Amino acid sequence: MYSLKVRCLAETFGTFWLVLGGCGSAVLAGFEIGYAGVALAFGLTVLTMAYAIGHISGCHLNPAVTIGLSVGKRFPRKEVIPYIIAQVIGGIIAAAILYFIASGKAGFSLFDGFAANGVAEHSPGKYSFAAGFVCEIIMTFAFLMIIMGSTHDKALAGFAPIAIGFGLTLIHLISIPVTNTSVNPARATSQAIFVQGWALEQLWIFWIAPMIGAVLAGTIFPLLCKNK
Amino acid sequence: MYSLKVRCLAETFGTFWLVLGGCGSAVLAGFEIGYAGVALAFGLTVLTMAYAIGHISGCHLNPAVTIGLSVGKRFPRKEVIPYIIAQVIGGIIAAAILYFIASGKAGFSLFDGFAANGVAEHSPGKYSFAAGFVCEIIMTFAFLMIIMGSTHDKALAGFAPIAIGFGLTLIHLISIPVTNTSVNPARATSQAIFVQGWALEQLWIFWIAPMIGAVLAGTIFPLLCKNK
Amino acid sequence: MYSLKVRCLAETFGTFWLVLGGCGSAVLAGFEIGYAGVALAFGLTVLTMAYAIGHISGCHLNPAVTIGLSVGKRFPRKEVIPYIIAQVIGGIIAAAILYFIASGKAGFSLFDGFAANGVAEHSPGKYSFAAGFVCEIIMTFAFLMIIMGSTHDKALAGFAPIAIGFGLTLIHLISIPVTNTSVNPARATSQAIFVQGWALEQLWIFWIAPMIGAVLAGTIFPLLCKNK
Amino acid sequence: MYSLKVRCLAETFGTFWLVLGGCGSAVLAGFEIGYAGVALAFGLTVLTMAYAIGHISGCHLNPAVTIGLSVGKRFPRKEVIPYIIAQVIGGIIAAAILYFIASGKAGFSLFDGFAANGVAEHSPGKYSFAAGFVCEIIMTFAFLMIIMGSTHDKALAGFAPIAIGFGLTLIHLISIPVTNTSVNPARATSQAIFVQGWALEQLWIFWIAPMIGAVLAGTIFPLLCKNK
Repeated sequence: MYSLKVRCLAETFGTFWLVLGGCGSAVLAGFEIGYAGVALAFGLTVLTMAYAIGHISGCHLNPAVTIGLSVGKRFPRKEVIPYIIAQVIGGIIAAAILYFIASGKAGFSLFDGFAANGVAEHSPGKYSFAAGFVCEIIMTFAFLMIIMGSTHDKALAGFAPIAIGFGLTLIHLISIPVTNTSVNPARATSQAIFVQGWALEQLWIFWIAPMIGAVLAGTIFPLLCKNK
Repeated sequence: MYSLKVRCLAETFGTFWLVLGGCGSAVLAGFEIGYAGVALAFGLTVLTMAYAIGHISGCHLNPAVTIGLSVGKRFPRKEVIPYIIAQVIGGIIAAAILYFIASGKAGFSLFDGFAANGVAEHSPGKYSFAAGFVCEIIMTFAFLMIIMGSTHDKALAGFAPIAIGFGLTLIHLISIPVTNTSVNPARATSQAIFVQGWALEQLWIFWIAPMIGAVLAGTIFPLLCKNK
Repeated sequence: MYSLKVRCLAETFGTFWLVLGGCGSAVLAGFEIGYAGVALAFGLTVLTMAYAIGHISGCHLNPAVTIGLSVGKRFPRKEVIPYIIAQVIGGIIAAAILYFIASGKAGFSLFDGFAANGVAEHSPGKYSFAAGFVCEIIMTFAFLMIIMGSTHDKALAGFAPIAIGFGLTLIHLISIPVTNTSVNPARATSQAIFVQGWALEQLWIFWIAPMIGAVLAGTIFPLLCKNK
Repeated sequence: MYSLKVRCLAETFGTFWLVLGGCGSAVLAGFEIGYAGVALAFGLTVLTMAYAIGHISGCHLNPAVTIGLSVGKRFPRKEVIPYIIAQVIGGIIAAAILYFIASGKAGFSLFDGFAANGVAEHSPGKYSFAAGFVCEIIMTFAFLMIIMGSTHDKALAGFAPIAIGFGLTLIHLISIPVTNTSVNPARATSQAIFVQGWALEQLWIFWIAPMIGAVLAGTIFPLLCKNK
């Protein structure tokens, strides 16, 4: 077991990569690779980090994951806050570097959204607040069910990063049009800080909804497995 | 071994995810991600659930799979009906939630098909009834052959969810233009209930054809392996 | 070890699936899923079958693979002809069923190519005979190197189907524009029989070039590994 | 352990395949498969070779990887130069064969770029020198972190080729618009030699930036894991 400090550093690096890879693919190459390419990129950030640093920190990279695992008794409650801080810092560093690279192209503008999450007029497909809020809850719920199921003692050891990474790809294949897909408050925060305005105003949605979904999964999954 | 009740709950959740992910990607993002993106989404619902709940219920998520495995002596006949009911319920819950999210966008209409399966004038590529019926038989037959082969005692343990999930992706890459790809009566039923009319009239096709394919595979595969 | 008859039946079924899935995705859905979707489909036919029937027949599904493995002392020479016959039969059955399904759409015509392989005016990108011939040699050579390397005693057991299946996807991502990608005489033959005319005239290319590549790899790979 | 000569031959073949597959998909099929297809192709060259020849040479296929692993004490310093020479030779052979195949199509021109790497007016998306230079450093840094993490003693044995291969896919999904993605001096060199002019003038960028990123990762990763 590594020290909390080392594990937090790993979470910072991993979340850095999630935001740089996921949001970076959307901002730099989204026009060429489409929603499916961006969905693949987000999933692969998690797949790659889960194999690279999973053995160090568990590779949460997402405050909702950390909270859901804590509710489900898979992660110590007292380390929740340090993990979340480390994740948000990693996301912000990535957004800063992404901003530097993206602004190296003439005509770059934050008004294009910088991959921030939004609902209503800021939803890519103009989905309502209610649709977006429910969608984020359900997607995060399913994400945590995948995580808790595939890392369960009885699951096939070693394959969890594939299930979880491609699970995040799947979630993006479904829900980019609805909210630009968050299911991850750190990823929502890093982009909102740069976009400002509406993105900051709607940011609470992308903390509350994923956390509701995560708490639901953290509560329900253990009941399912206990109930022999 | 978990109780039948718990396993049925897992099947309900898993089929919920299959329909929400597969049909959801088609309804919400199909225009952007194309048939290939939808094909990937359907396969990933099964890949993720097979790792997450395979150790609980076996992760059938599909009445044709349950029937085929039962015919092939891999699943007890007396649990077939409970599994199928659990699967259909999961699909319907997913369709209801998908309906709620999709209708959060102005201009949403069930007339666009809601990812229901169909033949003739309701086939995406206007393929005839005969083409669609044969296609569903063959695709479900191959799906069950993949399932029974990759979960065989001599197969490489642990990789079956990859083979089966990407097998479903492959089946969609081939046959979305023909029938919108069912190979799964639960997935066909959940969408038909919302679309009504023609979708309900053609629903029998998407129960009978997949079941024929599944029974064929359940009969043939064991002969192949027995026949040393 | 299964009997030669059972193993040949498995090869027939597997090659049936390779042609139905690969050529079927191109014929039925190629317009929608593009070359990348077709490339994925071809690879997934091999990935799924390698897990499903690899433990029965070794899952060659391709006369060039059977010949290459025989040259490389991985497969008994006296079983080469039965395997090749079984593969070609499987391909032809698939092409017949594909023809039935495809002709269920008004306006279907074999003049669109039916996914046959070709060079010069029949190359998708109008690549010359020389380019196509060399391309097929090199691609089949690399395919056999991947197969022999990933199934080597020292390779990571279990992952070979992923390497080989995605290897075939990769080969298609490169070379569909050049020859429509064969690297497999059985797949070339099944489609040429239906298209007739030019496809039959050029068919020899798609037997000779893949076999040259396969024999080269079967000769070189063992030297590499022996040469400690 | 194989002799240095044999391992270098494996590196030559592997880098040949990386360049032929990655740059080949871009040159021959890039118009049809798009950036996402090219990204997948590059990743699959590494995934396939890592399973096929990883057990022979370690499958670096990239001077930056060799240098980074050497700095991180995972590869003997005295074998760095032979490995790099072998890799560059493999890339050049691939570029020559690719040139032969590509020029088999009427209208082929090296002015289309032949998949060479570039910045400023030679960046696909016209990204500045600074953006490109920083992007190559960060991407190579992350690539080496993925490599060192997923091949660490505590990582899940066997899955590293999936993480590393799809990691390269991810890197391309992000950065093709910026520099056409190098992160690999051998791949940059082989294409620049054929394109000449601007590509040779900018080639130093694609040696220096990846090497900076690799040295950073080779330095930082071991500190992270040592620091219990």
